[in-house]
Amino acid sequence: MNQFDVIIIGGGPGGSKAASVLAGAGRKVALVEDRHLGGVCLNCGCIPTKLLLGAVAPRGHIRGLERQRIATGSLTVNYTALQKRVQRFTGASSQALGKALQGAGVQIYSGRAVCRDARTVAVLDTDGQTAAMLSGNHIILASGSRSAAFPGLTPDHDAVLDSTDLLNIAAVPESLLIVGAGAIGLEMADFFSAMGSTVTVVEAAPQLAPTEDEDLAREMEKLLRKTGLTILTGVRAASLLTRDGQAVLTLEDGRELCATKALVAVGRTPNTDGLGVASTGGSLDRRGFVQTDDYLQTAPGIFAIGDVNGRTLLAHAAEHQAVYVARQILGLDSGAYDPGPIPSCIYGSLEVMRVGLTAREAKAGGGEVAVSRAPLIANAIAQAGGDPAGFVKVVWRDGRMAGIAALGHHVSHLVTAAQLLLLGQYHGERLHHFMFAHPTLDEILHAAITASREAVD
Amino acid sequence: MNQFDVIIIGGGPGGSKAASVLAGAGRKVALVEDRHLGGVCLNCGCIPTKLLLGAVAPRGHIRGLERQRIATGSLTVNYTALQKRVQRFTGASSQALGKALQGAGVQIYSGRAVCRDARTVAVLDTDGQTAAMLSGNHIILASGSRSAAFPGLTPDHDAVLDSTDLLNIAAVPESLLIVGAGAIGLEMADFFSAMGSTVTVVEAAPQLAPTEDEDLAREMEKLLRKTGLTILTGVRAASLLTRDGQAVLTLEDGRELCATKALVAVGRTPNTDGLGVASTGGSLDRRGFVQTDDYLQTAPGIFAIGDVNGRTLLAHAAEHQAVYVARQILGLDSGAYDPGPIPSCIYGSLEVMRVGLTAREAKAGGGEVAVSRAPLIANAIAQAGGDPAGFVKVVWRDGRMAGIAALGHHVSHLVTAAQLLLLGQYHGERLHHFMFAHPTLDEILHAAITASREAVD
Repeated sequence: MNQFDVIIIGGGPGGSKAASVLAGAGRKVALVEDRHLGGVCLNCGCIPTKLLLGAVAPRGHIRGLERQRIATGSLTVNYTALQKRVQRFTGASSQALGKALQGAGVQIYSGRAVCRDARTVAVLDTDGQTAAMLSGNHIILASGSRSAAFPGLTPDHDAVLDSTDLLNIAAVPESLLIVGAGAIGLEMADFFSAMGSTVTVVEAAPQLAPTEDEDLAREMEKLLRKTGLTILTGVRAASLLTRDGQAVLTLEDGRELCATKALVAVGRTPNTDGLGVASTGGSLDRRGFVQTDDYLQTAPGIFAIGDVNGRTLLAHAAEHQAVYVARQILGLDSGAYDPGPIPSCIYGSLEVMRVGLTAREAKAGGGEVAVSRAPLIANAIAQAGGDPAGFVKVVWRDGRMAGIAALGHHVSHLVTAAQLLLLGQYHGERLHHFMFAHPTLDEILHAAITASREAVD
Repeated sequence: MNQFDVIIIGGGPGGSKAASVLAGAGRKVALVEDRHLGGVCLNCGCIPTKLLLGAVAPRGHIRGLERQRIATGSLTVNYTALQKRVQRFTGASSQALGKALQGAGVQIYSGRAVCRDARTVAVLDTDGQTAAMLSGNHIILASGSRSAAFPGLTPDHDAVLDSTDLLNIAAVPESLLIVGAGAIGLEMADFFSAMGSTVTVVEAAPQLAPTEDEDLAREMEKLLRKTGLTILTGVRAASLLTRDGQAVLTLEDGRELCATKALVAVGRTPNTDGLGVASTGGSLDRRGFVQTDDYLQTAPGIFAIGDVNGRTLLAHAAEHQAVYVARQILGLDSGAYDPGPIPSCIYGSLEVMRVGLTAREAKAGGGEVAVSRAPLIANAIAQAGGDPAGFVKVVWRDGRMAGIAALGHHVSHLVTAAQLLLLGQYHGERLHHFMFAHPTLDEILHAAITASREAVD
């Protein structure tokens, strides 16, 4: 039996961060990972997609300049070379993460972790044999999530793919069907469309990016259609399968759509099968996520962070929870977990960023809700970027900023400034004393905060 | 005699902003402008250069992708069409500004303003005849600045140009000499180099961007040389003149450099000749800038804002001072003027941003100074951008953040986030509770703030 202060299950953004903070503070830490350090985010999620999108980014800018008739240009991406570059970067980053953790004194176990009780974790090898038994004062569950599948919507890894399959596809498909228009679906649609695929996006909800503001989603849909995407919202898939080597999607209304490949991007499901959560005294909700209290505990001394607790399925939320839990174990934090306003981005030639609440969410929470907005067209840096479509929208509740969202080119760059402006409630008197650099894209935040407000019924 | 609450001389960023705030609060405002509303910034400064740089921006990104062998591409800019687009945008913006000011009730006078006494301003027409006499309770001097010239370094508007001439040049010069490597010189160098000019930059100071951090300037010089720029620092110009239609620069060491055109970008000189500052009770310093007290007053009830007071020659500093002075006149602000940490950016394929102090400035102010830094190469979004050269550097004084600077591609996008992190002193405990979105370029700020600190002797 190997003795530790803390056993961490999962080496993604949450688990790695917790391990690094705890080991840095002198705690004896075991980290169990059954695939690659860095998790989905680094190995087959946010990072690979950003590198892919970065390689086609000049195309959107060139298109904007061409529309203004001030330049012509071209960009030819070598897809195989790009994939190798992505694999090199993510592989090297995963290795570097492992070295850093080991350097900090973290004991890394490769294998599948199964909780035996509230203090004991077994590490199983690929044959399911017990390779090590670990004992710890604390366990942190950080096993993450994977692409969700539903009856009739299950990747067969032939023509019907999950996002990991699609990232590793050997050639750009002639046509691509994407089921699900959340961040993953939209980013993949943008990349493969830029690479020349004929892309169709199908979303069951009445709007793209279902968790985002309705106005924003409506405008986004309009702008994306102009780039050549086919978008169907409010339509449900009845089945999706490979037929004669092609992906065939049958909608509930009977329509049939075919494409070279299809991506299922309809959400995430937690990695809790066989994790042994019940044996630690914790429990799962009906979707399989680990239930946590206000302190991210599943049971006394046992924590769950990141995707696996189902609170906020974002890498940075996992890291933030990791720091909180590590500091709680170290006796540095004792209050209930408070994420603050949560930031998020959707990347691509057209971007979305949001911090805090949408108008709909603010309204649901009660109080007087209003919105103010500013179009990017009035911003000189947006103009210089070749295509100033989009806007920033501020959500107010009872006279305080409750959320800031944006749609447009490069608006992901606004996210941290928006978050800090929201946190610091920079409006009215306080904003008068703040000097915005000119010209910057950031000034659009000032314009949106100071624009006239419209009540939301 | 026309009676006003406030007479504003100059319709640049400072004057327009003051007029808009004061008129918005119901004050009777006269604004006197002898050229274009929007001033140098909009008409022949920051805005035109950003639009020019935006049109060549994809080129730097394509070059980065080509170096990584993942893409090839091209960009051909139609210089004439680009110039027309710039003129259309700045012309329309200037007109829109005029309409907005008139809509707010500002009385706009076109002509040259001369102060007759502390309450009287004459407006002269182009023949020097008095077109109107204005009387006001307050005068705000906001007449701005123009390109400085020195003996031997005076634009002749033939082959030796100032920045306004260069912006209006009919064709891209085959070769271009730029004297002065501040923001204007560097941005022009970047644009014309991208357009195919052979560019040589000559700077008298021992480093590029003389007001910036030495490390940063050294790294910038190295990176700019790689793009094909010729850079001479620590060399003084003895003379610069047009000879046989070419620009000929003679250095103090006797070397002679020739080019199709030359740009003199050696600083700015205030527009105070004939302004009649003395007759208002104010005075000029030996370089001609209007002297102001802690309240930006030149004499009781008379204010000077923006470039003309020589404090901070940046459009956004002028606007910030304008809001302060307007609020002082409105009785809303009574304390001494405090700019807070001042942000600035240099744009181009390689960018610089800074908020607050350099290490040198912090050291000069006394106290224990340290620096911490993080390279952009570790940031996934910098990697996705094709060229992750550069870094972020944080300056600490007595344990508090005193400045944040960055060099690299797209780092201008960090400026407002850096400013808010600095203002809020987000480090230690406070930073633990702040959730940085992942992946973002902004995360490099977190990395630099949390990196180990090195004392500065």
